[in-house]
Amino acid sequence: MTVSISSLDPQIISRGREFFASISGESPSVFNKGWWTGKVMDWAMKNEDFKVQMFRFVDVLPYLNTSESLSRHIEEYFSGEDSNIPDVLKWGATKTKIGGGLVAKVLNRTIRSNIESMARQFIIGQVSKEAVKGIRKLRKDGFAFVLDLLGEATVSEVESDVYRDGYLEVLEAIQKELGKWKPLDGGANDLDWGHAPKVNVAVKPSAFYSQSKPVDLEGTVVGMMSRIEPIYKKTMEMGGFMCIDMESLKYKEATVELFKRLRLKYPDYPHLGIVFQAYLRSVDDDVRHLLEWAHAQNLPISIRLVKGAYWDYETVMAKQNDWPVPVWTHKPESDMAFERVSKMILENSDICHFACASHNIRTISAVMETASALNVPEERYEFQVLYGMAEPVRKGLRNVAKRVRLYCPYGDLLPGMAYLVRRLLENTANESFLKQTFADEADMDHLLENPEATLKRQLDSRCAPKEEKQIGPSRFVNFPVADFTIEAERNAFPDSIATVRARMGGEVPLFINGKDVVTSDRLESYNPADPSEIVGSVCQAGVTEVDIAIEAASDAYLSWRDVAPEKRAEVLFKAAQYLKDTIHELCALQVLEVGKQWDQAHADVSEAIDFLEYYAREMIRFGKPRRMGRAPGEMSQLFYQGKGVAAVIAPWNFPLAISVGMVSAAIASGCSVVYKPAGISSCVGHNLVEMWKAAGLPDGVFNYCPGRGSVMGDHLVDHPDVSVIAFTGSMEVGLRIQERAAKVQPGQQQCKRVIAEMGGKNGTIIDDDADLDEAVLGVLYAAFGFQGQKCSACSRVIVLDSIYDRFIERLTEAAKSVKLGPSENPANYMGPVADKAAQKNVLRYIRIAEEEGNVLVKREVSDDLKATGGCYVPLTIVDGITKDHRIAQEEVFGPVLSVMRAKNMDEALDIANSTRFALTGAIYTRSPANLERASREFRVGNLYLNKPSVGALVERHAFGGFKMSGVGSKAGGPDYLLQFMDPRLVCENTMRRGFAPIEEDDEWIS
Amino acid sequence: MTVSISSLDPQIISRGREFFASISGESPSVFNKGWWTGKVMDWAMKNEDFKVQMFRFVDVLPYLNTSESLSRHIEEYFSGEDSNIPDVLKWGATKTKIGGGLVAKVLNRTIRSNIESMARQFIIGQVSKEAVKGIRKLRKDGFAFVLDLLGEATVSEVESDVYRDGYLEVLEAIQKELGKWKPLDGGANDLDWGHAPKVNVAVKPSAFYSQSKPVDLEGTVVGMMSRIEPIYKKTMEMGGFMCIDMESLKYKEATVELFKRLRLKYPDYPHLGIVFQAYLRSVDDDVRHLLEWAHAQNLPISIRLVKGAYWDYETVMAKQNDWPVPVWTHKPESDMAFERVSKMILENSDICHFACASHNIRTISAVMETASALNVPEERYEFQVLYGMAEPVRKGLRNVAKRVRLYCPYGDLLPGMAYLVRRLLENTANESFLKQTFADEADMDHLLENPEATLKRQLDSRCAPKEEKQIGPSRFVNFPVADFTIEAERNAFPDSIATVRARMGGEVPLFINGKDVVTSDRLESYNPADPSEIVGSVCQAGVTEVDIAIEAASDAYLSWRDVAPEKRAEVLFKAAQYLKDTIHELCALQVLEVGKQWDQAHADVSEAIDFLEYYAREMIRFGKPRRMGRAPGEMSQLFYQGKGVAAVIAPWNFPLAISVGMVSAAIASGCSVVYKPAGISSCVGHNLVEMWKAAGLPDGVFNYCPGRGSVMGDHLVDHPDVSVIAFTGSMEVGLRIQERAAKVQPGQQQCKRVIAEMGGKNGTIIDDDADLDEAVLGVLYAAFGFQGQKCSACSRVIVLDSIYDRFIERLTEAAKSVKLGPSENPANYMGPVADKAAQKNVLRYIRIAEEEGNVLVKREVSDDLKATGGCYVPLTIVDGITKDHRIAQEEVFGPVLSVMRAKNMDEALDIANSTRFALTGAIYTRSPANLERASREFRVGNLYLNKPSVGALVERHAFGGFKMSGVGSKAGGPDYLLQFMDPRLVCENTMRRGFAPIEEDDEWIS
Repeated sequence: MTVSISSLDPQIISRGREFFASISGESPSVFNKGWWTGKVMDWAMKNEDFKVQMFRFVDVLPYLNTSESLSRHIEEYFSGEDSNIPDVLKWGATKTKIGGGLVAKVLNRTIRSNIESMARQFIIGQVSKEAVKGIRKLRKDGFAFVLDLLGEATVSEVESDVYRDGYLEVLEAIQKELGKWKPLDGGANDLDWGHAPKVNVAVKPSAFYSQSKPVDLEGTVVGMMSRIEPIYKKTMEMGGFMCIDMESLKYKEATVELFKRLRLKYPDYPHLGIVFQAYLRSVDDDVRHLLEWAHAQNLPISIRLVKGAYWDYETVMAKQNDWPVPVWTHKPESDMAFERVSKMILENSDICHFACASHNIRTISAVMETASALNVPEERYEFQVLYGMAEPVRKGLRNVAKRVRLYCPYGDLLPGMAYLVRRLLENTANESFLKQTFADEADMDHLLENPEATLKRQLDSRCAPKEEKQIGPSRFVNFPVADFTIEAERNAFPDSIATVRARMGGEVPLFINGKDVVTSDRLESYNPADPSEIVGSVCQAGVTEVDIAIEAASDAYLSWRDVAPEKRAEVLFKAAQYLKDTIHELCALQVLEVGKQWDQAHADVSEAIDFLEYYAREMIRFGKPRRMGRAPGEMSQLFYQGKGVAAVIAPWNFPLAISVGMVSAAIASGCSVVYKPAGISSCVGHNLVEMWKAAGLPDGVFNYCPGRGSVMGDHLVDHPDVSVIAFTGSMEVGLRIQERAAKVQPGQQQCKRVIAEMGGKNGTIIDDDADLDEAVLGVLYAAFGFQGQKCSACSRVIVLDSIYDRFIERLTEAAKSVKLGPSENPANYMGPVADKAAQKNVLRYIRIAEEEGNVLVKREVSDDLKATGGCYVPLTIVDGITKDHRIAQEEVFGPVLSVMRAKNMDEALDIANSTRFALTGAIYTRSPANLERASREFRVGNLYLNKPSVGALVERHAFGGFKMSGVGSKAGGPDYLLQFMDPRLVCENTMRRGFAPIEEDDEWIS
Repeated sequence: MTVSISSLDPQIISRGREFFASISGESPSVFNKGWWTGKVMDWAMKNEDFKVQMFRFVDVLPYLNTSESLSRHIEEYFSGEDSNIPDVLKWGATKTKIGGGLVAKVLNRTIRSNIESMARQFIIGQVSKEAVKGIRKLRKDGFAFVLDLLGEATVSEVESDVYRDGYLEVLEAIQKELGKWKPLDGGANDLDWGHAPKVNVAVKPSAFYSQSKPVDLEGTVVGMMSRIEPIYKKTMEMGGFMCIDMESLKYKEATVELFKRLRLKYPDYPHLGIVFQAYLRSVDDDVRHLLEWAHAQNLPISIRLVKGAYWDYETVMAKQNDWPVPVWTHKPESDMAFERVSKMILENSDICHFACASHNIRTISAVMETASALNVPEERYEFQVLYGMAEPVRKGLRNVAKRVRLYCPYGDLLPGMAYLVRRLLENTANESFLKQTFADEADMDHLLENPEATLKRQLDSRCAPKEEKQIGPSRFVNFPVADFTIEAERNAFPDSIATVRARMGGEVPLFINGKDVVTSDRLESYNPADPSEIVGSVCQAGVTEVDIAIEAASDAYLSWRDVAPEKRAEVLFKAAQYLKDTIHELCALQVLEVGKQWDQAHADVSEAIDFLEYYAREMIRFGKPRRMGRAPGEMSQLFYQGKGVAAVIAPWNFPLAISVGMVSAAIASGCSVVYKPAGISSCVGHNLVEMWKAAGLPDGVFNYCPGRGSVMGDHLVDHPDVSVIAFTGSMEVGLRIQERAAKVQPGQQQCKRVIAEMGGKNGTIIDDDADLDEAVLGVLYAAFGFQGQKCSACSRVIVLDSIYDRFIERLTEAAKSVKLGPSENPANYMGPVADKAAQKNVLRYIRIAEEEGNVLVKREVSDDLKATGGCYVPLTIVDGITKDHRIAQEEVFGPVLSVMRAKNMDEALDIANSTRFALTGAIYTRSPANLERASREFRVGNLYLNKPSVGALVERHAFGGFKMSGVGSKAGGPDYLLQFMDPRLVCENTMRRGFAPIEEDDEWIS
């Protein structure tokens, strides 16, 4: 039987009109302006700035434990002049300071209780007893329920345990009461409406496994299963229903897989459901596949369809990562998908029970009419709405459809506030059906219109986009981050690793003036996870080879500097294309040579691509001569010329990215290059040879010259024909290079320019109102990502006294939860350090840390792994560190984190700024004043607010520090290329015989 | 009797109509398209680019002595694809290469003869015999004449002698013929028309004295007089008339004065005239003053009124110098002035004879009607038109007014071409009456309209200017160059020198942390023109004072760096205002302390003002945080922070400008400063103390620390608390500073940044087609201005073989013509070098030059001056220098110029680039290909095309070199401030709970 929604439209609209009529005059309590919540909603809808401030304030509220702290935040969030700020807040903002003591206390109590009562609107209870009581009341009103335990992000396995136990506890409490509840509608078999279990529980799977991540699909599913299964067992014991909620897109695949495994494991128990989100572009395929699976397995299933609650998040993340936006970008598209997928499910009602979760009366009407047209039995579908929202809708639904279930969150106010914010946002969004229906009172015809028609109308009314003339390459965008939700991306890694492993181990020659050069001195580069595995036998340049390379580069420079900037840029674009084309093998080599995790390796290659794409565009920009002044009779133009031969001395920790960055900047600028990669990563360094070949760079412009620093390092730096030295590495070496380069050698024709990026001792401040969900994971990642071997790594976390214990507890447990082992295995959070020398050095610092502080965490790999001889060091966290300790001052370059306590923000900033370095830093705070203060006073090259201090992206996070961290340049920033070039100015007197051609931009008479 | 032009309008228009009617159907030969000239005019009017190329080509033509050279220039000027290029030229441009030998020769002959015949259109003859013949013919046709001898710029006294002799020669030739000429109209007393001398000669006074300059008014008048008087005497002997022509504005005052003196000297001879230009805004006043003078002296005079031929030049110069534009900017305003001033002269016909020189029929009609209304006797006015132009007008005039005189240039084709270009431009200008009348055939009503009405119409038709919202300070413009045509400006100098001299000689204390500090060690700064005159007794800082100053600066830095960039800019604007307010005394001190000529001193103070005004604006620009990337959910901003304490080590040659430049850049950027002026110019350096006080700079941000380099120089550079060293001076010291600064000292917290501007050995290339009028004066000024003591000074002039002799001859004579002596006297071109040490050093190099080359010029001051003990050295030019000579490689910093011969442009560029330095350079050429080639291959920091290599202006000529000339930064350029700052980036994650406020410039979904 074929049913088409458009043919049903008249009935749908007619039913919708009836629905509206049946609830005429009613309004959801959330819009009731007599209440404080209603007022806030009203203000928020009128004023976007206030909305942002208000919702952020609500978000931070549970962290504001003292009257003083609350006052301060009110002041900071609401002290603006805006007349749209509610008086109670404005008054609060201005008066708490003046009134002091008593006034402040009264005011604070009022505000706190107002906001808490807002939260209670949407949350059925804070403890299980309250929840049970609330449910009882709902059932009395004729509504079924589904219970959801609110939770913070689980950053550790301990927290995941606690979360699981929370569910078991509430189920226990319900179990005690269950016998007393009569089935709704007097249903048979103790089932609501005669077919539905009275107990219904929803679970968000990612919270049950703190180590969930797309790249480790199997580990994630197994981890989630381990804690959800006990809850499912308990539910089954109570004859209940469990629904697995869908969260953000990155967990979708794991969630579906979890559902399937659980369903297969208990094939005879039918009450297991899963959620799909209509806003996903993939929703049709996803639902179709699961229905096919259910048919194939012959296992009845249940699907709840929702619109989806992470639209902003998914869109922002996609835009930030330059991924395709995975959600529909027009609201009616989601509505269309909802109706379409509902129909698909209803068509499969033989195998699938359907829960329609929508507040949209058009959608509900469409589902009802479709079900009716398809003759779907009533027990095969039900309706769900959120507790505390859309009361008129739920009432109307109960009247017409009976089978209405309320989604009831319960739990602490702390996670409750986050939930509250989501609900408030949903209610105030311009496109919200509820807002349109009950706050804006939009035209009923529009509200009930077929979304296809709405979409057409919206698209028609948009102005035609201005045709932008594209001259030259498009605007720079960062290369997309690896998306491990895509199976092909996950599979590419092991495949490429196998490929690369099969061919590695051979001789790696030098490359000078377009030719391979073999030397007898060799350095063997090995896999740090297994030093017996040789990655390459790398020829080492001596002073002779360096001299030859510099001579070749000097010759090549003379013509390369005069190649048009656009032509030089073209070569970089081609090089970028080569990297894009071979990205997985490039990543694989990094996994094997320096022990990068998959995502870290991918980020490194992406950054290399970014440098090429960015510097190429930058050179096109700088390549255009700039007219200086506007005097008539004179044409004065400023332009740039490459300085000469650049010696590029690269580090091993970003073996491709930083090498390509420094080298391509030099080449884009019109310099030629002698490139010395780090010994440890010389095989990755050799990728540049292949890259420039593919790009068609003329011979001699790039020369690959690995060699022992002790043999040829000084010689390279001292050479009179070197004009630029671009170095990234340790402070000690950087300073030595600067000192040597400043001495003019016989025959030297130019002052050398040294671009030195050196060390860091980066701090992260945790303010007392920090969002710990983000702060704990952020610090963990910044400190231990790639084993802490980043100059940007967090090595000091400076925690404010009042949040110290909570933060440390969560951080320590989080650190104990991550997995250690070879980087090849994507389950592992941390692998071996780069080589034996690094291992030795880090172990030495761990001893110092142990002497100076108290060990909170010291986690080693398993003995099995140790036995492989891999360069592992323990993941180490110590506290009790003060700024005078060595471990607080010296760069370790390994997974060692010092925890430092600060009594207030003054002290925290003082500690943060107390080292010789000034590279990166981070602060987690939700105080607008402290955000602003840190921006000013936390003096580092790259400061991150509510973000980890690592992972700088080209352009967006132009990277580099000052003090002893570097010379104050920014790689991937708008001033970087200037360092490789000399400015030249040519000024022509265009007046002859008293006559000058007048240019358009002359300062001429009007 | 009162006559108003507007009341005469009906008669004027009616007479104009008659005039038009009388010449109906006639057209000036210049627009005759049957002739080559007419075609060129036609093409030029249709195509602005072709016009520029064509007229430039005409200009260079006389220099193209060989067939090859002519071919090459045609190729370069006309090889474009433009369809508007005449075939003969296009064909010439493409075929000369291919056809080779014979074809080229034929073609070249054609083009050359075409252009020469164009010139003959406007020039009555090339030698006196031809001129006399031409005149005879004119007189036969009923026209009187006034003879003008064309001339190149006279760059030396020898050339001025030659020019004078040219006049005497032609007068001699005329005298022989004179008796044969019957007076026109059969006038009585052997006078034309019964009242006008048959012989009439015009002189351009500036050409008669090569050292003419506004700043030396008296010297200029005396110099002009010395060579014009003999001509006047000869004229009187022949009973002739002499008219003194008016040239560009800068000679106006001297010309008027010359006229008065000559008129007074021969009071009984009435036939002396002068010219005024109606396009000058001052024309009413100028004419009125002269008429009053004539009345007062009771001396009859004659005035020729012209529109004025230097409109473009005067406007361009005013705009380049930021002077008020001295000419009317709307053509009808000049026409109005012409009618107004004509009337004024006619009203004074009792004392003043009037020559109306205009081709504009409206103007002519107005003059006729005004004269008639005023009953001016016919013998009191006449009409003049240019030979070869406006033939219909002259014909019409002869018919109605009889008394028509043709202005007849004669002379060599070389200066003739320059004259030709002026005439061609005038004929093709859009606003030209001739073009409108005879080429465009504009509406007669418009042509005869009262210019007042025309002006109103033009103004009304302009769009209302867009109201630009002025946010912050206006766009940067350079401070105006001193305008010595203004008497007050000339008088200000001696006055200020007297004032400063009266109060100088006292103690000059250090200034540290807002307080004067007196030390016992003193250095006496003296006047290099008279070492016995002490300018100041300057306290010298030792290491103790340096330490105290650095400590003060370190403290001040901590708060200064956080002062908002706009506030810092404000301080700079106030400092600039202080300099503007006290400019003459600041100049006077430089004249006395370092021997700067007036204009040089003024340029130095102006540059200081420019630095303040420019860097203030630059800091406002850099002060705005720049958003990086456009990712939603993230706000990433790049901004800058001052590096710390800057040690500024300044030179004495631009004692205020470079000091203020380096210091203000540091201060604008948020650094604090310890400033060490050069010992020789420490008193000028102390001006900075007063300046910053006046600007309200907080204590400690600027510290004045003069001292002996040997005592405290290294200490200042080595100090661990110094972050930036800004140095301008010799290469030796610069390299020493760089080397020392690169060594990290104990306790040092940052890598030091050294900004070093060092020496130069600047070359100027003279191509074989260079405009020698400009090249000779440009090289002279670049080599000997301020005694060659500029890092930008020309010390090598590289001359192409084929023009070598001509250039050298003119240059040598020019060098012999300039005056030497104290800079206080504005007549002197060159004064003493800076001090005894400089004198000794330069004398040493002169000995080297004498040994290595052949002395062409070695000019010393008079023995009287030598006896004063002033630090004089000879002005020296040597030739026979090759690039291996020391004098071609080492910086002299004094008035020593090496002449080097190059066989072609390849060799010239090779020589130019052959030193360790790469600071400035210049080339004089009229070959488009060589201009382009030099722009690319003459590799210096500042290259000037057809301009001297000195006199860089802030912004317009952002200044600085590379190789051993500096570190590749540009003072007064857009990248300069970056060197004093560290970039910082703050990146905020603005997403909370999946919700991010979307910014307008986010890369968001469409």
